[in-house]
Amino acid sequence: MIKVSVMYPNTPGARFDHAYYRDQHMPMVQARLGEHCRSYTVDKGLAGGAPGSAPPYVAMCHIFCDSLEAFQAGFGPHAQEIMADVANYTDLTPLLQISEVVVD
Amino acid sequence: MIKVSVMYPNTPGARFDHAYYRDQHMPMVQARLGEHCRSYTVDKGLAGGAPGSAPPYVAMCHIFCDSLEAFQAGFGPHAQEIMADVANYTDLTPLLQISEVVVD
Repeated sequence: MIKVSVMYPNTPGARFDHAYYRDQHMPMVQARLGEHCRSYTVDKGLAGGAPGSAPPYVAMCHIFCDSLEAFQAGFGPHAQEIMADVANYTDLTPLLQISEVVVD
Repeated sequence: MIKVSVMYPNTPGARFDHAYYRDQHMPMVQARLGEHCRSYTVDKGLAGGAPGSAPPYVAMCHIFCDSLEAFQAGFGPHAQEIMADVANYTDLTPLLQISEVVVD
């Protein structure tokens, strides 16, 4: 199984609508990916490691798929619609990472 | 519920022993945290978002706890032992983030 992690850097002054991300964007992504998405999680950054420090990322999602090919098969046909929705909740450019799920 | 994410930057030339991390370090962390750790996951970085790009992080773990206080209660008494074990699998300094689990 693989995990697609989308990480939004916690940039001062940037805009991020956590409610829209949770209630609109991510359910839409799941609906478009369909059977290619096994599940997903959403995180809201609270803090960094040092006392009083800011979290490195304001939000993250992790999308679980059977394989990279499965993710691409689900995401590819809807990439334009999904990417066009990003401006509705943030002006940040996320970091993206594909990982092998070693411990689930 | 909160998630403690520990993210190891994918620095060229750095050392990271994925087998030790999976088989020795993380099970030890779980054992020391005891009931304060609900579960944890481990990721091995495969790729970034652009074709052929490297993953931002060589490895990540995410530790799930009921609250930040629960994590601190479990981690604090064993922090020295846990941190001393890090050199056994990597010479990297990880980024740490505390997140609220919005979608589980």
